[in-house]
Amino acid sequence: MPNISKKGVAMPPSPIRKLQPYADKAIKAGKHIYYLNIGQPDIKTPQKALDAVRNTDIEILSYSPSQGFESYLHKLVQYYKHNTIDIDSSEVIVTTGGSEALSFAMGSITDFGDEIIIPEPFYANYNGFSTAYGVTVKPVTSKLEDNFALPPISDFEKQITPKTKAILLCNPGNPTGYLYTKDEIEAIADLALKHDIFVIADEVYREFTYDGAEHYSIMNVERLREHAIMVDSVSKRFSMCGARIGCMVSKNQEVIKTAMKFAQARLSPPTLAQIASEAALDVDKSYFKDVNAEYTVRRNILVKGLKKIKGVKVAEPKGAFYCVAQLPVNNTEDFAQWLLEEFEDRGETIMVAPASGFYSTPQTGLNQIRMAYVLEEKSLIRSINILEKALQLYNA
Amino acid sequence: MPNISKKGVAMPPSPIRKLQPYADKAIKAGKHIYYLNIGQPDIKTPQKALDAVRNTDIEILSYSPSQGFESYLHKLVQYYKHNTIDIDSSEVIVTTGGSEALSFAMGSITDFGDEIIIPEPFYANYNGFSTAYGVTVKPVTSKLEDNFALPPISDFEKQITPKTKAILLCNPGNPTGYLYTKDEIEAIADLALKHDIFVIADEVYREFTYDGAEHYSIMNVERLREHAIMVDSVSKRFSMCGARIGCMVSKNQEVIKTAMKFAQARLSPPTLAQIASEAALDVDKSYFKDVNAEYTVRRNILVKGLKKIKGVKVAEPKGAFYCVAQLPVNNTEDFAQWLLEEFEDRGETIMVAPASGFYSTPQTGLNQIRMAYVLEEKSLIRSINILEKALQLYNA
Repeated sequence: MPNISKKGVAMPPSPIRKLQPYADKAIKAGKHIYYLNIGQPDIKTPQKALDAVRNTDIEILSYSPSQGFESYLHKLVQYYKHNTIDIDSSEVIVTTGGSEALSFAMGSITDFGDEIIIPEPFYANYNGFSTAYGVTVKPVTSKLEDNFALPPISDFEKQITPKTKAILLCNPGNPTGYLYTKDEIEAIADLALKHDIFVIADEVYREFTYDGAEHYSIMNVERLREHAIMVDSVSKRFSMCGARIGCMVSKNQEVIKTAMKFAQARLSPPTLAQIASEAALDVDKSYFKDVNAEYTVRRNILVKGLKKIKGVKVAEPKGAFYCVAQLPVNNTEDFAQWLLEEFEDRGETIMVAPASGFYSTPQTGLNQIRMAYVLEEKSLIRSINILEKALQLYNA
Repeated sequence: MPNISKKGVAMPPSPIRKLQPYADKAIKAGKHIYYLNIGQPDIKTPQKALDAVRNTDIEILSYSPSQGFESYLHKLVQYYKHNTIDIDSSEVIVTTGGSEALSFAMGSITDFGDEIIIPEPFYANYNGFSTAYGVTVKPVTSKLEDNFALPPISDFEKQITPKTKAILLCNPGNPTGYLYTKDEIEAIADLALKHDIFVIADEVYREFTYDGAEHYSIMNVERLREHAIMVDSVSKRFSMCGARIGCMVSKNQEVIKTAMKFAQARLSPPTLAQIASEAALDVDKSYFKDVNAEYTVRRNILVKGLKKIKGVKVAEPKGAFYCVAQLPVNNTEDFAQWLLEEFEDRGETIMVAPASGFYSTPQTGLNQIRMAYVLEEKSLIRSINILEKALQLYNA
């Protein structure tokens, strides 16, 4: 039998989906599960987006241009303008989800053996794309005690080698919920310019900031115009995870030209989903206000609830809809599996994502979990209650 | 300014889209263009597929499972059964177009520096995915005089090295229109088993076979179950190029397990397009009969018309909807550009794909073009007429 690829062997399975077989078994056994493991919002997709697809008069579902539909590109430019980001449509490529935007960005600037620096814990799929391209992730560890703020620049400096091509940030952060300050972004910009490397910023959670905090985009750093690549997506913004529409933005025309070759190789992003995404941009501003109000309530419930559980520490999230908590257990992967396999309270349990999968440094974050507050109030309260009971039993 | 990647520099631009800027200028200047350069069928998408999307009662456009919706997987299994291909749903991964299926297949079995053997001319985007993964394409040249039949197995043997991981076939072929015989597929199977390498078969044009010829799938070669990977797509089958739905199929569970890691890293294939693709499988058998009858007429018109032009040679296509023709010019890239920039006949011209972009061997196919017969009769006849006039003027 022929061998599969070494990178295929090396590629880590998704920490979010790894425990799914146990969840499937639990469901078959009749258990009800509250899913806190995955960032699939329960917020309704804007009616306008779904109506646009329902009312389409398309007769032939044709390719769109590889860069994306012109009409959508132009509306994206307007959307960014409203978000203090000034770009031209020639600086945008519509992609199949934020995933493909990241893949294009990495592919355009890295070769086999190159390195990318990422503050950990980070979105686990960054590992997948790095491994696929033979790129090594050099992690810089941020701390729960600091709410996962940017680690000292000196820690980044230590990881820089001649093979370093970029620093990759997620802002606001998945899984941390941390929102980088303007000063932190500026410090990263200085570092990138000093070493002449790229900054890739994953800003898919831009709108989800709380307590009046404002998002500072990498595209706002004027002196970084040749060094900044932004990754974006409609998935979380409009509760359209299944659309698979994102985009990659850069003012560096060489980067865009190169990414366009990757875009042409895969022909085009999905047509129907682009129609929905374009229409979604017509939602009233009140949409985000309502959604944020809802997430703020949920965050407060979750953080407050977690803090009340004995032995649990939680990093205060300022954005996105995740939070990382430290549990009084040795290994959250075992605990998360136990929650699905062994535990139940009145026929119910919870599913959480063990945080070690979000760290690149081995044996790190073993006692942490990521929880997504994408469930409505009542389910969240019940989930916290389940967690508390489960911890008591587990540690008894 | 930081450097972009070497692979980004090496990646060839799409030969189909390369001339687009000249086409755009021609359109602005008021010229009408007949597009024979791209395989975008003018056949209507099945009403059932579009209606399924129009009638969806989805409220949240959520992720699908990474492998694809279970209901769609099960209907795919039925579809393959009707096409003499016996598989289980665990042997299928739904992908974002055939492009992603190919990317997953390559990623699962190759590492940086490995080699893949492909008969040329071949679908140009195979180059893109190979370059992205640092895989070297070793071409085996097939000949227009033989209608691009499989080259002698000894030619393949010559290209095999310890780094060879797979032979990649497109059957029926883009750009050649060639349909491999059962004997040819069996010969490739023997070769693959002898050297213990994979066979990737791109079978997206399965239904488009003419003159009573039957398609023989790589999945029908029983002894190849651990070595065969099939790449498929709804794009051409149901005139749904913009859906971006395909799939990858293999009975080798290690391959599927590995490809699933790639699938999880990009989360899921597009939800709306999966709904449309599932519904498309409900079309009557008459759909393919009608479509094939239409393409047969077009193929006959095109081939017959081309043969009548002085100095033009054409390979007889038995499948897909492309044909490669040799023109009495030195360089079809110059000629194709000239057609857009300089030529017009009553305000009209044609756009064709220079064939050199489909060869991996440098300086090959320079006097060949690929034409897609995706236009209706009248437009095809007019296109041939334009080509004839243009050649006369160009060579005068």
